[in-house]
Amino acid sequence: MEIFQSVQKIEYEGPNSENPFAFKYYNPNEEIQGQTMEELLRFSVAYWHTFVGDGSDPFGQGTMQRSWNQYDGMDLAKSRVEAAFELFEKLQVPFYCFHDVDIAPEGGSLRETFANLDQIVALLKEHMKSSKTKLLWNTANQFSHPRWVHGAATSPNADVFAHAAAKVKKGLEIALELGAENYVFWGGREGYETLLNTDMKLELDNLARFFHMAIDYAKEIGFKGQFLIEPKPKEPTKHQYDFDVATGLAFLQSYGLKDYFKFNVEANHATLAGHTFEHELRVARTHGMLGSVDANQGDTLLGWDTDEFPTDLYSTTLAMYEILKNGGLGSGGLNFDAKVRRGSFEPEDLFHAHIAGMDSFAIGAKIAAQLIEDKVLENVIEDRYSSYSEGIGLEIVEGKASFHTLEQYALEQGEIKNKSGRQEAIKGVINRYLIETCSGVKV
Amino acid sequence: MEIFQSVQKIEYEGPNSENPFAFKYYNPNEEIQGQTMEELLRFSVAYWHTFVGDGSDPFGQGTMQRSWNQYDGMDLAKSRVEAAFELFEKLQVPFYCFHDVDIAPEGGSLRETFANLDQIVALLKEHMKSSKTKLLWNTANQFSHPRWVHGAATSPNADVFAHAAAKVKKGLEIALELGAENYVFWGGREGYETLLNTDMKLELDNLARFFHMAIDYAKEIGFKGQFLIEPKPKEPTKHQYDFDVATGLAFLQSYGLKDYFKFNVEANHATLAGHTFEHELRVARTHGMLGSVDANQGDTLLGWDTDEFPTDLYSTTLAMYEILKNGGLGSGGLNFDAKVRRGSFEPEDLFHAHIAGMDSFAIGAKIAAQLIEDKVLENVIEDRYSSYSEGIGLEIVEGKASFHTLEQYALEQGEIKNKSGRQEAIKGVINRYLIETCSGVKV
Amino acid sequence: MEIFQSVQKIEYEGPNSENPFAFKYYNPNEEIQGQTMEELLRFSVAYWHTFVGDGSDPFGQGTMQRSWNQYDGMDLAKSRVEAAFELFEKLQVPFYCFHDVDIAPEGGSLRETFANLDQIVALLKEHMKSSKTKLLWNTANQFSHPRWVHGAATSPNADVFAHAAAKVKKGLEIALELGAENYVFWGGREGYETLLNTDMKLELDNLARFFHMAIDYAKEIGFKGQFLIEPKPKEPTKHQYDFDVATGLAFLQSYGLKDYFKFNVEANHATLAGHTFEHELRVARTHGMLGSVDANQGDTLLGWDTDEFPTDLYSTTLAMYEILKNGGLGSGGLNFDAKVRRGSFEPEDLFHAHIAGMDSFAIGAKIAAQLIEDKVLENVIEDRYSSYSEGIGLEIVEGKASFHTLEQYALEQGEIKNKSGRQEAIKGVINRYLIETCSGVKV
Amino acid sequence: MEIFQSVQKIEYEGPNSENPFAFKYYNPNEEIQGQTMEELLRFSVAYWHTFVGDGSDPFGQGTMQRSWNQYDGMDLAKSRVEAAFELFEKLQVPFYCFHDVDIAPEGGSLRETFANLDQIVALLKEHMKSSKTKLLWNTANQFSHPRWVHGAATSPNADVFAHAAAKVKKGLEIALELGAENYVFWGGREGYETLLNTDMKLELDNLARFFHMAIDYAKEIGFKGQFLIEPKPKEPTKHQYDFDVATGLAFLQSYGLKDYFKFNVEANHATLAGHTFEHELRVARTHGMLGSVDANQGDTLLGWDTDEFPTDLYSTTLAMYEILKNGGLGSGGLNFDAKVRRGSFEPEDLFHAHIAGMDSFAIGAKIAAQLIEDKVLENVIEDRYSSYSEGIGLEIVEGKASFHTLEQYALEQGEIKNKSGRQEAIKGVINRYLIETCSGVKV
Repeated sequence: MEIFQSVQKIEYEGPNSENPFAFKYYNPNEEIQGQTMEELLRFSVAYWHTFVGDGSDPFGQGTMQRSWNQYDGMDLAKSRVEAAFELFEKLQVPFYCFHDVDIAPEGGSLRETFANLDQIVALLKEHMKSSKTKLLWNTANQFSHPRWVHGAATSPNADVFAHAAAKVKKGLEIALELGAENYVFWGGREGYETLLNTDMKLELDNLARFFHMAIDYAKEIGFKGQFLIEPKPKEPTKHQYDFDVATGLAFLQSYGLKDYFKFNVEANHATLAGHTFEHELRVARTHGMLGSVDANQGDTLLGWDTDEFPTDLYSTTLAMYEILKNGGLGSGGLNFDAKVRRGSFEPEDLFHAHIAGMDSFAIGAKIAAQLIEDKVLENVIEDRYSSYSEGIGLEIVEGKASFHTLEQYALEQGEIKNKSGRQEAIKGVINRYLIETCSGVKV
Repeated sequence: MEIFQSVQKIEYEGPNSENPFAFKYYNPNEEIQGQTMEELLRFSVAYWHTFVGDGSDPFGQGTMQRSWNQYDGMDLAKSRVEAAFELFEKLQVPFYCFHDVDIAPEGGSLRETFANLDQIVALLKEHMKSSKTKLLWNTANQFSHPRWVHGAATSPNADVFAHAAAKVKKGLEIALELGAENYVFWGGREGYETLLNTDMKLELDNLARFFHMAIDYAKEIGFKGQFLIEPKPKEPTKHQYDFDVATGLAFLQSYGLKDYFKFNVEANHATLAGHTFEHELRVARTHGMLGSVDANQGDTLLGWDTDEFPTDLYSTTLAMYEILKNGGLGSGGLNFDAKVRRGSFEPEDLFHAHIAGMDSFAIGAKIAAQLIEDKVLENVIEDRYSSYSEGIGLEIVEGKASFHTLEQYALEQGEIKNKSGRQEAIKGVINRYLIETCSGVKV
Repeated sequence: MEIFQSVQKIEYEGPNSENPFAFKYYNPNEEIQGQTMEELLRFSVAYWHTFVGDGSDPFGQGTMQRSWNQYDGMDLAKSRVEAAFELFEKLQVPFYCFHDVDIAPEGGSLRETFANLDQIVALLKEHMKSSKTKLLWNTANQFSHPRWVHGAATSPNADVFAHAAAKVKKGLEIALELGAENYVFWGGREGYETLLNTDMKLELDNLARFFHMAIDYAKEIGFKGQFLIEPKPKEPTKHQYDFDVATGLAFLQSYGLKDYFKFNVEANHATLAGHTFEHELRVARTHGMLGSVDANQGDTLLGWDTDEFPTDLYSTTLAMYEILKNGGLGSGGLNFDAKVRRGSFEPEDLFHAHIAGMDSFAIGAKIAAQLIEDKVLENVIEDRYSSYSEGIGLEIVEGKASFHTLEQYALEQGEIKNKSGRQEAIKGVINRYLIETCSGVKV
Repeated sequence: MEIFQSVQKIEYEGPNSENPFAFKYYNPNEEIQGQTMEELLRFSVAYWHTFVGDGSDPFGQGTMQRSWNQYDGMDLAKSRVEAAFELFEKLQVPFYCFHDVDIAPEGGSLRETFANLDQIVALLKEHMKSSKTKLLWNTANQFSHPRWVHGAATSPNADVFAHAAAKVKKGLEIALELGAENYVFWGGREGYETLLNTDMKLELDNLARFFHMAIDYAKEIGFKGQFLIEPKPKEPTKHQYDFDVATGLAFLQSYGLKDYFKFNVEANHATLAGHTFEHELRVARTHGMLGSVDANQGDTLLGWDTDEFPTDLYSTTLAMYEILKNGGLGSGGLNFDAKVRRGSFEPEDLFHAHIAGMDSFAIGAKIAAQLIEDKVLENVIEDRYSSYSEGIGLEIVEGKASFHTLEQYALEQGEIKNKSGRQEAIKGVINRYLIETCSGVKV
């Protein structure tokens, strides 16, 4: 039975289409740098926001009108699976993602929870046989249930650590079963509320122990997917240990874990940490650690994780620039970790929102590809750093310089001449690409 | 003698031009809603940033390469006038703005300062005879000299209040002499560093007394320009009394000043106060208090006034939407209270930056006009609030309802039906207008 | 049956007491400026946080261990009343506050909701007969139920406006019935998510119409309590119309409402708006609009309303300074709009938290009173602004000066001499009062 | 000739002293945990703020009244040395710190700059012979001069890199000459303004190359002082590479530099990065990387580096707690990287400010020591994490657990019992220690 009856399969109809339920820019088969948009962008629907999220916020109850809410328990879980694959197909998305608790309710015991999971995983597998939509990644929700109140792998309670281990063990088995291309760790409660009652050293040590066990188990069962850490600075905790990419990197290096992980970079988490989205992507890329992306956007004038669907074209352009320079996302993708606003409670809004997000990334991809093809930024960089290609600069990068040779050089040189960074001019050029690329006008 | 030798008069050449010193979108003679762009946008160059600013910041010295820096004292002041009118002409801007100390150096006494001003004002007047560039507004700098350390009209020192009065008196006389269309008050130090040593009540009373004296004097000399208050929440002070438009409005109402002032709304000041630019414009417009605009942009991930040239097209579009809905800015204008980055120190950057800003507002104006012509948002609003056009809603807005009639109505009504706010869909439409408007493609 | 069996009545035992369930500083009968602490501080328990709050957050479910959660519906409501009055008595608090939905569940219809309220109000009244705890204020929750998704009095849906009116009408009747000393309006959804779909002018007009109807009805039924507006800048909305005290004041002035309202100032709302707590109190006091206080604290490094129990002694001291300078809070009080952390889920934590808050305000009151008695800040102010007590300064404040007389004065005066603001020295003195006041050592 | 004539040597006089120029809490000879306060706290005066800072800000000129400003060039430099050692002696501080440009003016060439430095270094050395005040650290200012506009070791201009190398080479020689206990790197411009023109990878590589050369040269000349990196997230740059301690750690690890550096943690830089001061200290301590402290405080409601003198006793207490748990600061110290407010322009304010800062850290040290002696937090921690001392928890920390054993355990365990984190109760206890410790009353 069709669930989203008012919406048919979304097709690419081009910018002039007056059909609100059509892609205007996302054309799955259009090529960018030798890949189709579908191959390059690897869009993914987030199960939690789209099929579980109810629109509640700290001051209000759920608002979302969802036909499946007439059910509960396992019936609800099954109904969501139906809704999900209908939406996947209508949106033509190649991937989806979930936390364990998104797909199946927790039972009265861990055994029962696992049994619930097994049942729904089988159902998902069945659907995936006839669907082109694959599992980008799954993860374990270790932050919602009261047991995680003080953390999971960093809980002061060893029983909680054990429970977390069992859940991730199960998660890896599910990942293997469903062919997940990655497995994500987001430590929503792996942090602290106050240092006054916190043994940071022990907590970090335990977190590392947990990750090593996960690596061991993945090897044991032959799960080859990429492990991803998703940094977030705060919320729900006062301070989260995976504050940002750099902090995550320091942790991974300190505990001999760097070779086993990449990062799942989220736009809204970046801005909560005081960074731009493109900064976090650049840092990850620079260290060869860019694994996947949670494609959303925040509101920099608000202090919480608004998880809006991505529509800012500056942001999608600069994100796609980093991704294209990274040679794509490998096994990662662009997962819409985004929720319709509480006031956008009609089922149609789920489609409006995904279309807006997919079109926005399609536009961003086209602009970024054009910028790269025209070497707009590459030429700026090449000219700006040219002094490192010869003379004293070359000696520096080749490791032939020392404080002695450099001092000698510096004492002899005359007044130093710098060149303007040209930020305003470059921004003007970016605007022209933004305005013109999709119109087909040569910039 | 030509000062900006590397740059000729900037002409409109359209988006395809490869000439970096050309307008790609700002076409002074192109019409928007029955006005030329030049008439609608009323661009203004800020004397302080463009001819005085040296690129220094709290951690570094000036970097700007400016030929006039070979002079000092009154010679420097005169040289800047030459540079200014050359740049005005090359950029074709219809307006400029200044603080008193921007145009002439302070002397050893107030008398000498006034004499310096008189000399340069005469020079400006001479130049303005043969220039199309007029004075949008002037103001008195009452925040840079050490005497203003604790405020001007809100100083705990009455001598400072008197000095401030003399300076604004002179400022009004200059405004009259040069035909300024407005006079601005930005109270850079009218606030406090700590409440521990501050008599807020006396300071606010004194500020109001000061404004009343200014009104009296303007009437006396026949200055008809609009008085403008420019809100800013903080920086340089811990807290500034004109925090935002609403705070300014409360002050003006409390002291019987509302009829004499409008607001000069600055984008970066808006974001420092936790608001969007368009919010501040909307609040001012809603109260009939939108007077003029300081057109720049901030960086919402930084906590200080970066005063960047405006290039964010979302922001220029929404700002122009408010301005067009306001029926334009009246005697106000779009003043580039913006500075080239410290690293953009070459004279050419001044042109790159103004071109980027002017093109960005031209694009914004075109998109906003198209949105209005197509009633994109107007239709959303009309539909969304339609319940106030009939029945109980009409009774409410016509003042015919009371808690009695409303309770009666509420007790009888069934379940309330709300409609989705459609935020994501609307944002998708805005993106299409952004991408398509300038390409001439019908959206 | 005793609900909080592990905790007996909290008594004052002085700082040396090792009993965690004792006041160390709050001594109800100790006098400060001629009033007992109990009379001055007028502490109030917030029904919602303490008896309804479950510890859920946007990423997690409830954690709170509350014996009354074994019940539901009206039984739960009744059980909470029992718990409330037991806690009130054990804590010796003179006041409490509630929203309508805190005390009684919404029914299937508005009529049923009102019937539920009537039943619980009668129960509360019965308890209040034998309790010293009175109702500081009540209010209507017009933000949690989905019907308020787009606002209440500012909803685009007139049906919602009507429903809101009926609820506030009932709220005023309850206030009258229970002898509430105030009635509060917190417009949790009275704001907007995006300007793109918002008619700000109509929404503000409607909000004013709503308030006028409330005033009319209060008069009609003879409710004499003080109307209070509680400003908050954002959360749950993107932007709330009652952003801060100044914004609220502008609104009240614009719509002829100023004489009928005062402000309920909350510490955490102040910091979310970019102000200190004491700033908001000062602004309200300066305009004669300080009505009541929501006594909590935020975390300025987090961007949401953490509503922590107030323990920062700088903040409680400066708040009590403003309150003492205001001549107390009149019909207002210090309402603990504060919740125990999600990790403080045991019933005992409710007592720890209230004790910490009450002791912190008691300490703050003692320090503030001592500062005032010793004229610490008053002497600073008197000296700092002395120039307005004579000569040109006196002419200014007496309205005898004009730009002419001031210019004349300024032209004749020599170099202006300012005095140091002495911020660091004053802060050192404040620290000494903080450290020494309670020890009885003469500072 | 005495420069600060109005202030005599500051002595400890106890809390009751009415002499504003006396220590009330800092008693150099009082013992804390077996060390004198002087030995433990290792206070240091920052040459730049105290002898060079003029009170200018982005909107205003200098205000500071300093007798030495009657001189310029090398005479000014020499006069500052006199002032410095007089202030050091009057304040009894054991240390001071400087950037090269603080002590001697840059000359027309690098050679001349070095010659200027040599002359002043000799003068400093002469003064240090008869002074107890030693050099805590020195550093090179590589951010103020226009040549550093795009960075120093991360400049796109190799000539700038060379110049920077020469300056640090000289800095290390000066450190050796004056017996500096540490050498600091603060990369004020080592970051970017916009990613659009930035080669982050090359810049980070170059920064690492620079540090390796510095290590080599220090070894060569036998400088044994500790190398310190001072993290700061932003300002003056949009983004600084040493964002915070964790980011610095990631960098050091990535480039094989970790063994050669520790961190100089600044309170205001911590809050600009979204962290508490104690968080940054804890992270550094946890990794054995806590080297020294820049003792100041910021204003979390302002977005720039206010560098206020530290007076918040919560902050000094928690900082001293971390320092005491670290076994002190080793070769590091508490450097007052703090400036008197622009309005505190009289020379006496320098003393008021340092006294306030020293007293505040003395109080913090006493409270922290008492907390540790009474095991207030240690008992909380021990109890809270006790599950890791036995059973499954012990297996986890001993590396004997795996996902298999943990799953087995988790499947068998019943409902998990967590304990309250008791944050409110702990904060109440901290307040009692704050109020009571210095009064000698047993808490």
